[in-house]
Amino acid sequence: MHRVCVVGSGNFGSTMAKVIAENIVAKDLKDFEKEVRMFVYDELIDGESIVDIINKKHENVKYLAGIKLPENIVAYRDLGEACTDCDYLVFVTPHQFITSLLPQMVGKFRKDATGISLIKGVYVNDNKIELMTELISDYLHIPCGGLMGANIAMNVAKQEFSETTIGFSEPELGEKWYPLFHNRYLRVKVIRDVYLQQLCGTLKNVIALGGGFIDGMGYGQNTKAAILRIGLEEMYEFARWYYPAKNCQSLTLIETCGIGDLIATSYGGRNHRCALEFAKTGKDFEVIEAELLKGQKLQGTLSAKEIYQLLKARHATKKFPLFTTIYLICNKQVPLETIFDYDGSHLDIEEE
Amino acid sequence: MHRVCVVGSGNFGSTMAKVIAENIVAKDLKDFEKEVRMFVYDELIDGESIVDIINKKHENVKYLAGIKLPENIVAYRDLGEACTDCDYLVFVTPHQFITSLLPQMVGKFRKDATGISLIKGVYVNDNKIELMTELISDYLHIPCGGLMGANIAMNVAKQEFSETTIGFSEPELGEKWYPLFHNRYLRVKVIRDVYLQQLCGTLKNVIALGGGFIDGMGYGQNTKAAILRIGLEEMYEFARWYYPAKNCQSLTLIETCGIGDLIATSYGGRNHRCALEFAKTGKDFEVIEAELLKGQKLQGTLSAKEIYQLLKARHATKKFPLFTTIYLICNKQVPLETIFDYDGSHLDIEEE
Repeated sequence: MHRVCVVGSGNFGSTMAKVIAENIVAKDLKDFEKEVRMFVYDELIDGESIVDIINKKHENVKYLAGIKLPENIVAYRDLGEACTDCDYLVFVTPHQFITSLLPQMVGKFRKDATGISLIKGVYVNDNKIELMTELISDYLHIPCGGLMGANIAMNVAKQEFSETTIGFSEPELGEKWYPLFHNRYLRVKVIRDVYLQQLCGTLKNVIALGGGFIDGMGYGQNTKAAILRIGLEEMYEFARWYYPAKNCQSLTLIETCGIGDLIATSYGGRNHRCALEFAKTGKDFEVIEAELLKGQKLQGTLSAKEIYQLLKARHATKKFPLFTTIYLICNKQVPLETIFDYDGSHLDIEEE
Repeated sequence: MHRVCVVGSGNFGSTMAKVIAENIVAKDLKDFEKEVRMFVYDELIDGESIVDIINKKHENVKYLAGIKLPENIVAYRDLGEACTDCDYLVFVTPHQFITSLLPQMVGKFRKDATGISLIKGVYVNDNKIELMTELISDYLHIPCGGLMGANIAMNVAKQEFSETTIGFSEPELGEKWYPLFHNRYLRVKVIRDVYLQQLCGTLKNVIALGGGFIDGMGYGQNTKAAILRIGLEEMYEFARWYYPAKNCQSLTLIETCGIGDLIATSYGGRNHRCALEFAKTGKDFEVIEAELLKGQKLQGTLSAKEIYQLLKARHATKKFPLFTTIYLICNKQVPLETIFDYDGSHLDIEEE
């Protein structure tokens, strides 16, 4: 019997644990244990442990308030215990916690386990990109794919129709995960192109900043559509440039992990909202983050900086004029209107 | 010396005549006559001929009020005279007038002329599709390509950054047109895939209705992105099914004639606005058109019906469940929420 452990319990983690737990029961997936384990970083809510609250009330009152969780989700406060004897490992923690969590799992889960990362974002270290799926796979010595798409957690939790993409280099592994996620309100497609899929999850946040600039400057849908589309092309070119041997496919752009997520993020996400405010008010992003996000950090500006540093180190800023220009605008080095200088001629100085 | 005639002077015709006339002067295109002729259907505006007004005031006060036209645009009230000795013919009239205009041109323009159609839409007759580019080409015996993208006329007229796609089966002909359209605010790309390009221009209006339904029902960006994306896929499948020998390319979807136009139309166009109203109020489309469009007809509902009839006649409604369902929703044969039944199981009866 297979056993699922969801590592993480934020709004997206709780939502996807809910999808899996619902599917095991509703589809009567006989090869799976009914119990879906969810590792929860324990904390006190009005004096009571969140782990106990979830197991008693079947609601994540902190991160997914108002949504009833299936009773076959069981919260664990110890990660080692949670993943013991599990062979389906779902990673859905914030980006920055993953390296401290992985060591707690070593030697606990089954040897034939596979992982799937729902974490948006890639590591950029020393001007090198490490995909979250690679990091998990290398550390735990298990195959690991990714799942991403236009999946705003609360909308999926409310069973509003959405789509998501599973990416696995070995498609037969992707097919193993498919029944756990696919249902009538979450339409799943399995692809092989895990590199472009993972990059899309990060780079789309940079392009969404550009979409926010356009809206903040007061331009119409022509112009916004143009920036998103050029951004999509640049995401593809970036993937082919950085991973020339990985056979990145343009068709991946047409999946929900590509264009779907880009649209949803650029019309509804926080990167878009903060960039719109930036363009309208001229305030620094630090100020806007503090005012609008209650202490949370913006992913797009951080990714824009990391990608920019990588491009600069490799003398490739002119090859990716939109990514580069969006960073320079965020940093107030060039005016907003520079986003339309699509030939990159203003970037000559960057290459020196 | 080449000579350009723009057949049509609505808001998009006037805008694109402006782009061409500006480019000939600004780029000093020495192979082209400075004069750009524009055929204008003459009518009286406060007692004065619109043709005379355009030639005197350099403004199309009826269709593009407030925008100064270049002085090298010359308005003609006689189409035969306008196109005499011209070899670059731009077609940008409303869909329904083209068949009455073409006979007036026969024998007037140069024998080595090429055409470009900026008309959105295809003819559906007897369950067959005729592309506007084919219709022009067959009638006038000239090669004819298409130009389309996310090009809301007033935004382009105000020189707001946009993109457009030129489609020609013979790319060298597309390259001949390129310098007339491309400039710093209108980014042009030439492709060969004229069939999918032209279909996108029509089918995107059907999908935009779907986007309007989602917004009218109050769903979030996840769901809207999903419907647009599935629509994009269905546009591609339709092109490959209807034109199996025309080598339609998925890459065309990533051009502005594909995803760009779909985004702009689904977030800002009149099909989207009326569909949103339909979903919110339950009124019939005829009523909504009368209330919101001041007598203009909606393209999307007409195209949805024509495509539906074609699919039904060919027993292919289940192959294109989104197109089919959007039509059935417009016609109030199925409820709005049926749009999420993506497997097409509700369409069994349609196939009988």
